[in-house]
Order: sequence, then structure tokens, then C-alpha cells
Amino acid sequence: MSASGGRREPGAGVDIDRLFHALGDPTRRAIVDMLSARPHSVSKLAAPLNITLTAVAQHLQILEETGLVRTEKVGRVRTCRIENAGFVALEQWIEAHKSMWEKRFDRLGELLEE
Amino acid sequence: MSASGGRREPGAGVDIDRLFHALGDPTRRAIVDMLSARPHSVSKLAAPLNITLTAVAQHLQILEETGLVRTEKVGRVRTCRIENAGFVALEQWIEAHKSMWEKRFDRLGELLEE
Repeated sequence: MSASGGRREPGAGVDIDRLFHALGDPTRRAIVDMLSARPHSVSKLAAPLNITLTAVAQHLQILEETGLVRTEKVGRVRTCRIENAGFVALEQWIEAHKSMWEKRFDRLGELLEE
Repeated sequence: MSASGGRREPGAGVDIDRLFHALGDPTRRAIVDMLSARPHSVSKLAAPLNITLTAVAQHLQILEETGLVRTEKVGRVRTCRIENAGFVALEQWIEAHKSMWEKRFDRLGELLEE
């Protein structure tokens, strides 16, 4: 999908290109906000966002593909939950890119706390 | 800029909407990759990316606005470095959205390590 710099994070198997794209959308971040508090059904997600169930389903598909959300259908209700893989991939990306300065600064802070 | 869910992270003063947008672009992530290793001049950034100095300058402006990069002009050379504010904002966003499950899991891991 992305020849010009995109890559997979080995730790979580999440495409970092798609992950940042997924989180660049305010509606998808609002869904993540709601699910961070507790699991929701698709219709419970749609109501406060004031968008159609179809639109929510499309956002959920992108969030599922990037390891930020998982959904499970029991009977007629699809329940959505936060998934950790996407967050782990984000953390790994940050960790890999923190400047040497920042890392040294962290270590200094730890030494001062001891 | 974003009425439907975007917000400013108080800790770092970085707009999280613009931050994810900035990092959704593979060329901008490649610039961050290079600057994570060491500071570069604008022309040193442009060469391996095979894009014009103007294009690099536009990407750098977005990276500067989102606290990921800072640049400093000394004489005729503009030097680019990693800035920490954007990374701090990302970390804060992750921390605020980690599921309760994940937090409990982390704490369990710490207990087992003790």
C-alpha cells in the first residue's frame, strides 16, 4: 500500500501508515474516546456522533483493521471494544523515534529520583 | 479547525488533529526518521527523499507546527532537529486512551516482576 516509507511494526503487525491515517479523523478519535471509557454497541456509538449506522460501520472497519478496536457480534448486537495492538504499535513508533536527547533526559530524571 | 472531536493536549499545546495528520504522511515520517538519528540541513534531508527543497520546506513547516521538529538558521544553513513536544503530546494521547484493561494488565506485569 505504501512504497514510499510505510512499514509494518513487527511487534504488533499494525501498518503504521494506516494507523496514523485512522487517528487523523476526529470522528474516529471520538469513537476511540467513547470506547476507552467502556464497550458500546454500534447504535450507542452512532447516537451522540449524529451519524448513520453505515458511517459508524465504515469507521469501525478502519479502526479494526488498524488494531485500535475489536467488535464481536452476539445475537443481533455488535459490541465494540478498545483493542490494544494499535496502541502498542503507536508506543513502539514513539519509542523508536524519541531523540537521543530525550532518552538521555529521561535517564537523568531517573537518576535524580533515586 | 475541528469542531467534531479535535482538541488541544494541555500538556504540550500541540493540536492532536494536526499531529496525526502530520504523521500520516510517509515522507514526513521519513524526515522524522532521519532527524531521530541526528540533525540534518534542509538539503541533506532533500537528497535521499528525492524531492525538491521547496517540498521539504513545506513538510518541515507542518512538522514544526506540530512540535515534532524545530529548525534553526545559522548563517546560510537551516539545521533541523527533532523536537519533543509532538512526541509528548502523542504519549499523552495514548496514556489517556489506554483501556482500563491494559492499565490493569500493566500493573499485573509490574507486580509479577517485583
